[in-house]
Parts: sequence; structure tokens; C-alpha cells
Amino acid sequence: DDIMAYARNVVEKEIEKHAADGLARVDYALGSGGAAVVKHSEPYVVGKGNWWTSMRNGVHSDADKMLRPSFGEPGQCFPLKGSSGFVQIKLRTAIIPEAITLEHVSKSVAYDRTSAPKDCRISAWLRRVHDQDLEVHTEKRFLLAEFTYDLEKSNAQTVTVLDSAVSNIVDTVRLDFTSNHGSPSHTCIYRLRVHGHEPEAVSVMAMHLS
Amino acid sequence: DDIMAYARNVVEKEIEKHAADGLARVDYALGSGGAAVVKHSEPYVVGKGNWWTSMRNGVHSDADKMLRPSFGEPGQCFPLKGSSGFVQIKLRTAIIPEAITLEHVSKSVAYDRTSAPKDCRISAWLRRVHDQDLEVHTEKRFLLAEFTYDLEKSNAQTVTVLDSAVSNIVDTVRLDFTSNHGSPSHTCIYRLRVHGHEPEAVSVMAMHLS
Amino acid sequence: DDIMAYARNVVEKEIEKHAADGLARVDYALGSGGAAVVKHSEPYVVGKGNWWTSMRNGVHSDADKMLRPSFGEPGQCFPLKGSSGFVQIKLRTAIIPEAITLEHVSKSVAYDRTSAPKDCRISAWLRRVHDQDLEVHTEKRFLLAEFTYDLEKSNAQTVTVLDSAVSNIVDTVRLDFTSNHGSPSHTCIYRLRVHGHEPEAVSVMAMHLS
Ligand SMILES: [K+]
Ligand SMILES: [K+]
Ligand SMILES: [K+]
Repeated sequence: DDIMAYARNVVEKEIEKHAADGLARVDYALGSGGAAVVKHSEPYVVGKGNWWTSMRNGVHSDADKMLRPSFGEPGQCFPLKGSSGFVQIKLRTAIIPEAITLEHVSKSVAYDRTSAPKDCRISAWLRRVHDQDLEVHTEKRFLLAEFTYDLEKSNAQTVTVLDSAVSNIVDTVRLDFTSNHGSPSHTCIYRLRVHGHEPEAVSVMAMHLS
Repeated sequence: DDIMAYARNVVEKEIEKHAADGLARVDYALGSGGAAVVKHSEPYVVGKGNWWTSMRNGVHSDADKMLRPSFGEPGQCFPLKGSSGFVQIKLRTAIIPEAITLEHVSKSVAYDRTSAPKDCRISAWLRRVHDQDLEVHTEKRFLLAEFTYDLEKSNAQTVTVLDSAVSNIVDTVRLDFTSNHGSPSHTCIYRLRVHGHEPEAVSVMAMHLS
Repeated sequence: DDIMAYARNVVEKEIEKHAADGLARVDYALGSGGAAVVKHSEPYVVGKGNWWTSMRNGVHSDADKMLRPSFGEPGQCFPLKGSSGFVQIKLRTAIIPEAITLEHVSKSVAYDRTSAPKDCRISAWLRRVHDQDLEVHTEKRFLLAEFTYDLEKSNAQTVTVLDSAVSNIVDTVRLDFTSNHGSPSHTCIYRLRVHGHEPEAVSVMAMHLS
């Protein structure tokens, strides 16, 4: 009886986690939550038509696919040209980042996984919106994580932020990938999530005063 | 062995229920099933642009979000201005209502849950479409349920219809909320579902003849 | 302890399968993977408006709904007029087909299941795109499967390809249904999936040379 109650409990917990976006962690890079892709390397577009006709303010219309759940569907990704490139994301709000999740399509339904990113680097900073002229000079960039996306592990892979970056407030995150898993033509980003917490009012003030 | 078979059985049942819209109950307020929001209090819209440009026949284009699954995504809701308001829904067809489910976003992925509705009241009636001039006079309204949405419970909360309303046929349901969980600016409705069954042909006839 | 570890393992495996499109099998008919409906019998459209205004190149705008996940939602289907009809699908790429899955909406959330297809027949062939004038003469059609969709079984029903069709390469699949589960007006196709594998480069060459 105890075992059966335990089994049912495990099931309910796991399904709850699955239903809560798979990880049950808040994602500050979620598109429907207000985050947006603001800059990226050249997109990869198949078929006729010029990719720049799908651009708006320098961002391709497919870019936001990487800020939305894929629900296990192949194709629900943002494809970038070549085996290296980058994507820059404005978060929903300024946060203290704790972890990053990079997700590709599940092995069991993928047609081909050579387009998965491999060597990745995540950096972040806080834009100084009130000092736009000085932006480049005043914002301080942090390296949040460096990792390799592993095709043998679970398709959503979470890395913890480096100690050196802990407790900094950021509102912009950038993924640079320097290699992929074999495709010479393109690299697909299915989803990038940014986990963390919002700073307490007092620490925001401290930061502004310092 | 029995225990293992039992465990597997529990898992399969629970996943089936999860896959069947989370509750495995028919929803007569589902948008893709033909239901629609027909009236609501003032919507809450952030950013520039006037909200009335997104209105069509008095209904905001975001209204139908509350008649669609959210799949655990924050932001997939219909936001209304202030801490009180209402939404009126034309069901897919006339039914005998049995229960109502009000759903907010899951605690584990929410940025903020102060916008969840709190004190709620559900009423319902049958529109007299053939007597449009007399509509207000001939339709009888029923109170289906009064309840408080509880942030500590599961995010989809189901209440049974009051005894006083049992076995009445209705095709329109209205949610009035008189408070929320703290947000002064807006209240988000993620999803409202209406469960019940369609009347037998004979009882529909009886009703029309009576 | 062993039992508990086993229970947890079962749960994780089943949720992984559920998250991987329910079956954890590659689907070469998936719309977001590049497949498309290319031909079908007369669509069923409710309400005013003429159905042919929603046609483009002879294909209704709702047709691709049958090449997308339904996520348990009633209404996410392609409705065809009457109790018999057909749909023809160009696959993402040429494959050696192994199995077909026909899916209807889950019993527990359905308003009505009389519109489910019943007696079905799946055939397939390889289009000869380089010999368009001769197309009809040169392509060889294979019967992949004949089966009856059973309302009592799981809502996604998979049938294995007939021995007679095994190891043929095809890129087009056609579903013919000759009956449904009772609706006189229409038949709904929620989803058709085509499972199999891509031919090795060597066998493709062998085929072209032979
Ligand atoms: K995605
Ligand atoms: K929703
Ligand atoms: K579908």
C-alpha cells in the first residue's frame, strides 16, 4: 500500500513537472512572457525568396521560435546559416541569472540531429537604456557559462551559471555557438531558456546608487 | 510483479489523463470546439496603441486565449483591467452544466501570480434566439457556483455546480470576479472550462413544449 | 527500494515518450517537417462562405491540420464531406515506410466521435518528378495497409506496413476511407503519421541505376 501510494505520488509529481514546461523552472527568455530576440547572425532559409524580406528591425520572423516551447515537434526552431553564429535576447525583465537551458529536438522524433549546436558560450549584460550614447562603454559583460551540447543526454540540457557571474543583474543574454554536430549548411536553435530571480527592490536601488 | 504492473498502469492512466487536456473531461467552452467570448469588461493592454483597435464586435482579439489550452506557458491568458470584471461565453451548444474549471498558470513557471482571480461567481442561462426582442425578459439566469481561486492548490481548480442549478439547460456562461490576488492593474484569465452533458433529444423537446 | 527506483524509471520513460510526440517515432508526414497535403476529396465547411475561397492550388487551408499534433484538442482536424473520401500527402522526403498511425480525438474530451473514419486503406508511391509527362505511367503504387479505426482502442492507432510493400521507396502517401463511425455529414481526420526510414545512399543509387 505504501509502495502504491509512493508510485502514484512519483507519477503525479513527474507529470506536474512535465506539464510545467518540462522543467518547472521560471524562464525569463520566454517569448509569451515578453522576451525577444534582438540580434542574430545570418538566418538559414531554404527555398526561393530572399531571407531579408522576412526581417524586421534586423530580426528574422522565425527568431522567436527559439523563445517558445517546441512540444516535441521537429522544425519548431530558428535555423542559422553555417556551423557557428550567435543570437542575442532581451529578457522579460532584469534578473540575477542562475542557469541556462539549451534544448534541441528529441532524438526519438528527429529526422537528423547534425544541425544541433555543439560548443556554446553564454554571456550577459545589463543595457544602460538611459545612456544610449555611452552604451558600449558603460555596460559590463559577464560570461555566464561555456558548455558542449551533448546529443546523448536529455534533449533539454541545463547548465548552472559560473561562480564568477553569480549575483550580477542582467537583462540581455547572448548565445555564441562555435560548432555544431556536423551539418555544413545550418544550425538549429530549438529553445534557449534563462532561469534566475528578480532582484529585490533594495538591491536594485543599491546598484543604482553605487 | 503485481506492484510493477500496478505502477505501470498508474503511469499510463495518468499520462492518458494528462494528454486528454489534463482533466479528461469534455469542455463545452473550448474555442476550437465552437465556443466564443461574446462580452467582457475592459481589457488590460500594455504598451502603446489603443485597445479598442483590437476589438471586433465588442470583443478583444485576446479574449479567445481563455478558451484555449495554455500548455503551461505564462502569458497565454486574457488580461482584464483592474481587480474585478467579467467575461461572458457562448458555449459550443446548449448543455446541462455539471462543473466549472478555472485555470491559472502553474506556480513553478509563473513570474508573478498576483494577477490571478480570487473571488469568483459563475452564472448561466439559455439565450432565446428566436425571441430576440424579448431576450432580457424571457431568459432565466442560474447561479452555477461561487468559489475562491486558491493559489496553494493545483493550478486547474474544478468546482461542482450548485444543487439549485442542477439539470437546467444553458448555452451562455458568465464569470464575474470581484477580487484578485493583489495586482492593482489587471487580472489574467488563463482558461475557463465548462463541463456537463448535452440534453437527450426527448428532454429538449419537453422543454420546448412546456 | 528497487521497486521505487523501477517505478520512477517507468514514469520517466513514459513521460519521455509522451513528450516525444506521444509515440517517440519519427513522422515523415509532419507538416513542420516539410510534408504537405497535395490533394483531397471535398472539404466539409460549416457556416456561410464558400469552401472554395479557402482553397489554394486545390488544397483547403485546413488540410495541414492533419499533419500537425492536436495536443488533445477537439476541433484540430481536417473535416471532409460525407462518410468516404481521400487525402494525398507529399512526405518530407522519400522513405522506406514501416508503419502508419491514424489518430482521432481522445474519447474523454470528444463531443461526438461519429465523425471518426472507419474502414481505411493506405497506398503509396514514388513520384517521378523528372519525367512529369510520363508520371501516370511510370509510378508504381503500393498498398501499404488496410485497417479499421476502432473507437474502443487508444486514440492513436498504428498499423505495420504489409509484407508485400516492405522495402519500397515512396514519397507520396494516400489515405482512402470508405466509411466512418456514423456521421452522415462529414469525416474528421485529426492526424496521419508515416513512420519509416530514409534509404541509404547506396540503395538510392542502385534504384536509379536499375
Ligand atoms: K521552439
Ligand atoms: K490559455
Ligand atoms: K491535428
